[in-house]
Amino acid sequence: MSLLNKLDNGAVIWLTGLSASGKTTIAKSLQIALQMRGVEPVMLDGDEIRAVMQLRGFDEQSRKTHNHYVGYMASIFEKRGHTVIVSLISPYAEIRNQIRSICLNFIEVHVCTPLETCIQRDPKGLYQKALAGEIQEFTGVSAPYEAPTQPDLSLDTAATHLDDCTEQLLQLLLQRSSQG
Amino acid sequence: MSLLNKLDNGAVIWLTGLSASGKTTIAKSLQIALQMRGVEPVMLDGDEIRAVMQLRGFDEQSRKTHNHYVGYMASIFEKRGHTVIVSLISPYAEIRNQIRSICLNFIEVHVCTPLETCIQRDPKGLYQKALAGEIQEFTGVSAPYEAPTQPDLSLDTAATHLDDCTEQLLQLLLQRSSQG
Repeated sequence: MSLLNKLDNGAVIWLTGLSASGKTTIAKSLQIALQMRGVEPVMLDGDEIRAVMQLRGFDEQSRKTHNHYVGYMASIFEKRGHTVIVSLISPYAEIRNQIRSICLNFIEVHVCTPLETCIQRDPKGLYQKALAGEIQEFTGVSAPYEAPTQPDLSLDTAATHLDDCTEQLLQLLLQRSSQG
Repeated sequence: MSLLNKLDNGAVIWLTGLSASGKTTIAKSLQIALQMRGVEPVMLDGDEIRAVMQLRGFDEQSRKTHNHYVGYMASIFEKRGHTVIVSLISPYAEIRNQIRSICLNFIEVHVCTPLETCIQRDPKGLYQKALAGEIQEFTGVSAPYEAPTQPDLSLDTAATHLDDCTEQLLQLLLQRSSQG
């Protein structure tokens, strides 16, 4: 089986982590790496979906529902043979596990950049507002983040160069796809 | 351009109508007709998605959110070139119009089987329960259904044979796909 077939046989690469941890950056880098290998992944970005759908709720129930729908979406794309890259804070372990159970090849990637680094980066000024109490229920500050206990891969973008993160992901994807 | 290419160039066929109006039956018949022409449509069935995700809310907000997500899902499948068949009560005109605006080739099909026929069919006994007040917010009984004012097609399964419904849909799809 060719490299291309191996990579394009359906998989869900699920990037979970704090806001500003680097999920979307990694997702886009992996997208380019896959495109260079002839694979056009489906990109599901939590923020982008919220923006298109004008969703505003960040309470526990709204987040869980949002995560569930994104997971369901990923699973049906996967069943059609697509490689799906999801970038979503997805703070609840229970929901991630439920999504894993409906996917065929679910690859949980914990983007484990330390909270301190995320706060320093703060590209949208959200941590500043959350720390000042201007935003409620902000993950890592005033809402929980349940880190994966057994992720398929952990990537700390504060310690590891983006190219290395991408390469590790590619290798894992190849390995997992050839087992499928 | 071949027939197959015309039909598999991305479209969202949106079947809206009352419970038991025949949406899923039409969807499955169209699915088979497309498969016979070499096209494997993506099937999005409202009830099925609710079942997989264990969603229970039928209040206005839950329905709107559910319809929004299914619409978003359909639109990204369509952008990947898939033909998508959606069967979903989708009672709110505003939401259907919003979904139309994010799709490229949105075909709104009103499955306009009269309420009386739906009540007579009542395959799951839901109308009986709704009429007895045992189920709240049931579309057509105790919750609104805003019929499309300008649907692309109307199909009354009480008056039209399933084969005819399917043929009308196929012809419309061909016509709309060749305009795209």
